[in-house]
Amino acid sequence: MLGLAVEFADSFHLNNPGGVDAGVDVRVSPVDGGVTAARGMQASGVFAGVRKMKNDIAVVYSEIPAVGAGVYTTNRVKAAPVLVCMDHVGAGVIQAIAVVSGNANACTGEQGLEDGYAITEALGRELGIDPATVAYASTGVIGVRLPMDRVIPGIMNAARQLAPDGGHAAADAIMTTDTFAKECAVRVEIGGKEVTIGGMAKGSGMIHPNMATMLCFVTTDAAIEQPLLDTALKDVTERTFNCITVDGDTSTNDMVIAMANGLAGNDLIRDFGEDYARFAAALEFVCTDLAKKIARDGEGATKLIEVTVKGARTARDAKTIAMSIAESELVKTAVFGADANWGRIMCAAGYAGVDFEPSRVNIYIGSLQVAVNGMSADFSEERAKEILSAKEVEITVDLRCGFEKATVWTCDLTFDYVRINASYRS
Amino acid sequence: MLGLAVEFADSFHLNNPGGVDAGVDVRVSPVDGGVTAARGMQASGVFAGVRKMKNDIAVVYSEIPAVGAGVYTTNRVKAAPVLVCMDHVGAGVIQAIAVVSGNANACTGEQGLEDGYAITEALGRELGIDPATVAYASTGVIGVRLPMDRVIPGIMNAARQLAPDGGHAAADAIMTTDTFAKECAVRVEIGGKEVTIGGMAKGSGMIHPNMATMLCFVTTDAAIEQPLLDTALKDVTERTFNCITVDGDTSTNDMVIAMANGLAGNDLIRDFGEDYARFAAALEFVCTDLAKKIARDGEGATKLIEVTVKGARTARDAKTIAMSIAESELVKTAVFGADANWGRIMCAAGYAGVDFEPSRVNIYIGSLQVAVNGMSADFSEERAKEILSAKEVEITVDLRCGFEKATVWTCDLTFDYVRINASYRS
Repeated sequence: MLGLAVEFADSFHLNNPGGVDAGVDVRVSPVDGGVTAARGMQASGVFAGVRKMKNDIAVVYSEIPAVGAGVYTTNRVKAAPVLVCMDHVGAGVIQAIAVVSGNANACTGEQGLEDGYAITEALGRELGIDPATVAYASTGVIGVRLPMDRVIPGIMNAARQLAPDGGHAAADAIMTTDTFAKECAVRVEIGGKEVTIGGMAKGSGMIHPNMATMLCFVTTDAAIEQPLLDTALKDVTERTFNCITVDGDTSTNDMVIAMANGLAGNDLIRDFGEDYARFAAALEFVCTDLAKKIARDGEGATKLIEVTVKGARTARDAKTIAMSIAESELVKTAVFGADANWGRIMCAAGYAGVDFEPSRVNIYIGSLQVAVNGMSADFSEERAKEILSAKEVEITVDLRCGFEKATVWTCDLTFDYVRINASYRS
Repeated sequence: MLGLAVEFADSFHLNNPGGVDAGVDVRVSPVDGGVTAARGMQASGVFAGVRKMKNDIAVVYSEIPAVGAGVYTTNRVKAAPVLVCMDHVGAGVIQAIAVVSGNANACTGEQGLEDGYAITEALGRELGIDPATVAYASTGVIGVRLPMDRVIPGIMNAARQLAPDGGHAAADAIMTTDTFAKECAVRVEIGGKEVTIGGMAKGSGMIHPNMATMLCFVTTDAAIEQPLLDTALKDVTERTFNCITVDGDTSTNDMVIAMANGLAGNDLIRDFGEDYARFAAALEFVCTDLAKKIARDGEGATKLIEVTVKGARTARDAKTIAMSIAESELVKTAVFGADANWGRIMCAAGYAGVDFEPSRVNIYIGSLQVAVNGMSADFSEERAKEILSAKEVEITVDLRCGFEKATVWTCDLTFDYVRINASYRS
């Protein structure tokens, strides 16, 4: 852990690992766009017929070879695309990413792996680049072979459609049950140069720490050494994508891939100095934004729920309890019903497996205190209902037994979650 | 662990702790009734006004003092009734149990504890027994003080209504969102005497290992030493109530209380010999039956799901994977939709945190094989839909990497779960 205590406003104030203010101010400016916001990046999204109605293949491309880094699902069952990326991205250099939506290519055995490499081969050939620098991701139904007769022509078509303004088309093509495309881009000054970081993600359902059916692709024109990109991506993932949950399920296909081509012309980031801190802060801004968009768009969700646990003995304790609350179906359903049932929050904190003193706990919904010393506060149910009826609901639990905290995100559990998932394959 | 490999038919075949067949056959005969099936047991259920419309207070009573044992929630937040029982039942002798439905008396601080002891005091006085031999359980909303002005008169009234055939009235009075009363009773021969074990439970929602909002009361006329009753209850709970899950939430109030008054006249069970084995087998029959009834009656549930994982290296591995599958919202929603989405089963097995080889896994829905060697089997979707449309669905995962197995139970996740829990307090 770097210990960067990043606040998500436009201006970041970095702390050193010991938690003491190091006095570094980072200004991160959101800009329009996504994976093609950075210099030298192109993308496209096309229809290949893997899905019935919508575009289903995306390609992202860097005009020059880039350093690459990936974070993958911890699921014991890893889909073919995960294995392909661990191989190709793991080697450190990538130049293109192919994404297939509608079929996960998971539980497909040797054949699935062969199909995966065939995709990287086809895209590499079409783009005139080394197939070993092509990453491949897939999302969709498990246990069914890819329709290669449609996928390969689709990949070639997508390669021909690549454009510097193709970011949105790509973000649209990777969606499955998502209801909106998820993109984010920022600029940050590093060593006097303007560096851009952009990204796109798909989520919805099965979003969970340790990377659930969640794909995220981040591109940047920063010049950074591969091991540092790798460290930044892992650290940031832990505090962003690993802090969201929709239903606690962790998928076979999840990955976050980052690609940095150096075209910003900044001095190569080669140590954990200020340049690195600035880069990491900007990366965290992008990943937090995408993570929250994923949580907000959980299947059937009507609300984004932000759970903060503070006053914990350790940051790990805080995160464990926050996730326990965020994963509680009873809490999530109560928020859907705008019911200030703080007992369920208390209860979920209690079974997180972390030691704390229940009689010290204060709970807030928004700024309204609903529990004091582990017992009911005298609060207005009407005001609580009002707060819980908003599109964003903040739950804060103050354990009052230490000084650490953590924030995680989830969504409410609704009728539509059940409707969508009862017949996903149909 | 005793290692009793109990098969749930009418006839039990017991194995010794080493797993080798010890050749003891136990015939357990189901009989009508519940907590008053055993000799010298009385019960009642009355309306006290804690809830609006239904009976809400139950009392169970043994005509003579009995040995008592309890298993309690592991939640860090323990409700007042749990603390009262740990005190009273923990002392080893009990003669009566008071149950309040509609209010959990949880997160109520010192006042809640005072109220709890006042209930045992009132019931003890009314029955003319030592209040320290009275157990007390509560279930319902968290964080609201008990309406003592209704509870105490209700308790006294229930004491006056006690009857040898009051078991069903009690089982009915402890229900909250349960849709049916849960009772079971069996006879078993121990040392030439006929011993009866009966029980009642309430569940529904928040059912989870380590005792979720689940109350269970078991009464028996067996003569058994307290430490042996305690061991039997803990072992059996681990394989029954701790093997069910509805939504993964573990409550502040759960408990299983057993009361054995010795009126069957069997030789006092004082060691882990055959008599003990027979008693434990019968207890397991009762608890398995009640556990399955709880799972079947999960909030909004339409189906009972039985998940068996076999071919595991250890029984713990098997149970961990089985619970991961049973807790998967995606699996439970797919069963609701009668969708043979075996990929979700595979996926949930994969994130259980247990090492296994995905390419060896076979999966069955009922007797229909849907996955072979971790890949799709060639199966009839129509037949699968038929099997998944039944009231009971069996999912079997064969890891083929060892010889241990475990079975757990859950229910499907439905629209009604969301409806019920979105406005529980209203």
